[in-house]
Amino acid sequence: MKDKPLILVTNDDGINAPGIRALIDVMIKIGDVVVVAPESPQSGMGHAITINSTLQSHLIKNHGGPQKEYSCSGTPADCVKLGINELMDRKPDICVSGINHGSNSSINVIYSGTMSAAIEASIEGVPAIGFSLLDYRWNANFNNIKSFVKKITLEAIKKGIPKGVVLNVNFPKLKESEIKGIKICRQARTYWIEEFDKRINPQGQKYYWLTGKFINEDNGKDTDEYALDKGYISIVPTQFDFTAYKAINEIKKWTL
Amino acid sequence: MKDKPLILVTNDDGINAPGIRALIDVMIKIGDVVVVAPESPQSGMGHAITINSTLQSHLIKNHGGPQKEYSCSGTPADCVKLGINELMDRKPDICVSGINHGSNSSINVIYSGTMSAAIEASIEGVPAIGFSLLDYRWNANFNNIKSFVKKITLEAIKKGIPKGVVLNVNFPKLKESEIKGIKICRQARTYWIEEFDKRINPQGQKYYWLTGKFINEDNGKDTDEYALDKGYISIVPTQFDFTAYKAINEIKKWTL
Repeated sequence: MKDKPLILVTNDDGINAPGIRALIDVMIKIGDVVVVAPESPQSGMGHAITINSTLQSHLIKNHGGPQKEYSCSGTPADCVKLGINELMDRKPDICVSGINHGSNSSINVIYSGTMSAAIEASIEGVPAIGFSLLDYRWNANFNNIKSFVKKITLEAIKKGIPKGVVLNVNFPKLKESEIKGIKICRQARTYWIEEFDKRINPQGQKYYWLTGKFINEDNGKDTDEYALDKGYISIVPTQFDFTAYKAINEIKKWTL
Repeated sequence: MKDKPLILVTNDDGINAPGIRALIDVMIKIGDVVVVAPESPQSGMGHAITINSTLQSHLIKNHGGPQKEYSCSGTPADCVKLGINELMDRKPDICVSGINHGSNSSINVIYSGTMSAAIEASIEGVPAIGFSLLDYRWNANFNNIKSFVKKITLEAIKKGIPKGVVLNVNFPKLKESEIKGIKICRQARTYWIEEFDKRINPQGQKYYWLTGKFINEDNGKDTDEYALDKGYISIVPTQFDFTAYKAINEIKKWTL
């Protein structure tokens, strides 16, 4: 590591979202910052990448501060690929993604553009953290959690994140003084019960809005949902080896 | 299970792709089939869902056969959500996704719309399998693998896929007689080295095509890449609990 770490900052809510502006505020106190973020919100994009279309990127100069900023027409994972492989002079020492407006705890990780960006960085060998605040509002108060974002990032740089692991950090919607501390957790077993809101457009055609109800069927006190509910920040070490090792022997018994 | 299983068929290459037509051919011999598939190709969509926009769906009657078919304006995960929660009369007994035109082995699983559809079904409690052929061509020969697709699906229905597990099945690009058999594998540790093809459009603006080189840094003989290379079909039991359990204790030692 150089004296000053080189930090790639990205998100999925777009380069003008208050969440990424708060994250940039913290990171410019830690190291040299390059921002590569979607030009418009990309929530729910999962680990999408742009392969049948092209990408455009623009240097953004109107935000002030010492950081270098690029907007990108693609997804969060595209931003990371473009940042690491094309826009940055050298491989960053760490990639931070967020701060997301809304939760990426438990099963939400799978739909998360914020976490897909962090995971993409880790796949490419860059230590990475995704940060999310349990407040969906555009004007959510990120000042409450800046000190924790800084602490976690500094400790991750100092100790090193294990290879193949990405940190999924979620913050409860509380004042700084009300936050009880930080818990290292596992992903709770949860799911969404889908409820499609069926409507008719002015042309008489049927269309749907996706809505849903969040179900937590996991009572574990070692889960992220439990920690967040009790006022703690949750950190889930997350991996991109999706193999269900325990199931290998069971399926080997099948007649195939 | 009813006498005849109810099967949800989807994919990410779109409802008119030869791969899903081959999958439908196989499934109508096994059970009652409902198809809910994207109206246009969605490759590289990962686990994207449509939350800031609306979905439309149309009953498609021109394909012939006993199956019921719906096209959907959304992503593969949207198709599964809409199929299970809105379009189907009851929860399907199994969901099959594909057959993808191209590999979803090793790290490709993370970018895969085919697998995101299967994973979404499993999250919603429906056993699921994703099928992919290592041939990107539109006119790939799916006849070579139909007998294996049938065998694997029937065995999965008979034995039951473990809860929280999705099967990621990849087929080598070989004639039926050349395929050596089926291996239950783990996901190989691989990554892509990105190479952006930088071009200038007619308006003089810079744009990028994402290209890349596939790197396999994993010599394990128990991996999907090894099995496929040796002429076997690979089945990786895949999970959506992304917790890196081995890293929890390590990160608990951090000063946070």
